[in-house]
Amino acid sequence: MASEKGVTLLDVWVSPFGQRARIALAEKGVDYEYKEENLADKSPLLLKYNPIHKKIPVLIHDGKSVCESLFMVQYIDEVWSDKHPILPSDPYARAQARFWADFVDKKVYESGTKLWKLKGEGQEEAKKEMIESLKLLEAELGEKKYFGGETFGFVDIAFVPFTSWFYTFETSADFKVEEVAPKLVAWTKRCMERESVAKTLYDPLKVYEFVGILKKRFGIE
Amino acid sequence: MASEKGVTLLDVWVSPFGQRARIALAEKGVDYEYKEENLADKSPLLLKYNPIHKKIPVLIHDGKSVCESLFMVQYIDEVWSDKHPILPSDPYARAQARFWADFVDKKVYESGTKLWKLKGEGQEEAKKEMIESLKLLEAELGEKKYFGGETFGFVDIAFVPFTSWFYTFETSADFKVEEVAPKLVAWTKRCMERESVAKTLYDPLKVYEFVGILKKRFGIE
Repeated sequence: MASEKGVTLLDVWVSPFGQRARIALAEKGVDYEYKEENLADKSPLLLKYNPIHKKIPVLIHDGKSVCESLFMVQYIDEVWSDKHPILPSDPYARAQARFWADFVDKKVYESGTKLWKLKGEGQEEAKKEMIESLKLLEAELGEKKYFGGETFGFVDIAFVPFTSWFYTFETSADFKVEEVAPKLVAWTKRCMERESVAKTLYDPLKVYEFVGILKKRFGIE
Repeated sequence: MASEKGVTLLDVWVSPFGQRARIALAEKGVDYEYKEENLADKSPLLLKYNPIHKKIPVLIHDGKSVCESLFMVQYIDEVWSDKHPILPSDPYARAQARFWADFVDKKVYESGTKLWKLKGEGQEEAKKEMIESLKLLEAELGEKKYFGGETFGFVDIAFVPFTSWFYTFETSADFKVEEVAPKLVAWTKRCMERESVAKTLYDPLKVYEFVGILKKRFGIE
């Protein structure tokens, strides 16, 4: 049985949700044990620590687990509050940050999955949704350095893992993020200059290759 | 144009999401203007203050809006922090509260809607899910007075509006909440003793009647 003291992350390398936790832990300088899960054969640890949803990522801290990536990032921010604040302190700014992180889950993740899973009309619909969502995120970013302003914050951490899926989205549905939301591409580059992000995200081609394996497994062309 | 100073809530009487905001505002003793929306003809105020999702509830505070009910309740807790804390202060307890409030959204709301919208196999599936979710919530409540322990808190506020839908769920799918989760029924009664809840929730029969109107509109049965 793995150590239940200290901090352990149950995760899968390519998960944008798990990557959020990894980036947050890196920003805070927290040492932790990373345990790669095999979702086809979930570990007893995963089933014990996320008995409700049985999903990764799971953060185990001193024997207690925190599930759902955005709550995990907030937990990390609250426990290791002495270094690099992730959420702003103003209640309105906090509500806005939560809104846009949730928007990434509800819109970018959902449309992104449809983009590579569906064909024809369903895919066209997803492409339209994705482009609309990217434009809304671009408008929210505006001329700021990060979504969090000068600080790399909650929305940045929520969204940046999906940037390594951009190539997969573009190739699946024949469009260019650069053309619909150029500021997001510039923002991605700024984020990649941070060690926390650069060390966590994978080459977009590796993500694309992984999606190819998934598609074969699901019997998609 | 309505006043943009002070606090305004754009809402629809029967919305469990809007009721969360109303209960939180009542617990905090915040005076606000309530504006009933007609979703068939959304007001310019709604479209202005929730341009992304165009949904109720919307909380407008000093001309700025907060959307998504659980973020709204957290905002209310953070702004009016001097009275009746809604979220606990311990980071782990906060993460747990967020997890279970989110569980209500993902499970109770989703299965509940299917219960009255679907027939046959789809409805049977939704009934199974609902019973499982209620049992999990009952286990989480355990012997505590409220989900928040001695304090009526975040999960209580997130979940209690759905209790006035229990009758609709039961009647749609032929089961009794009392039989599958008796502690939840006792907890509902304790919650109803609070003025914030009693003044906000509607008679389950009125909710059932409303769902009947919705079903006719959607051409169900």
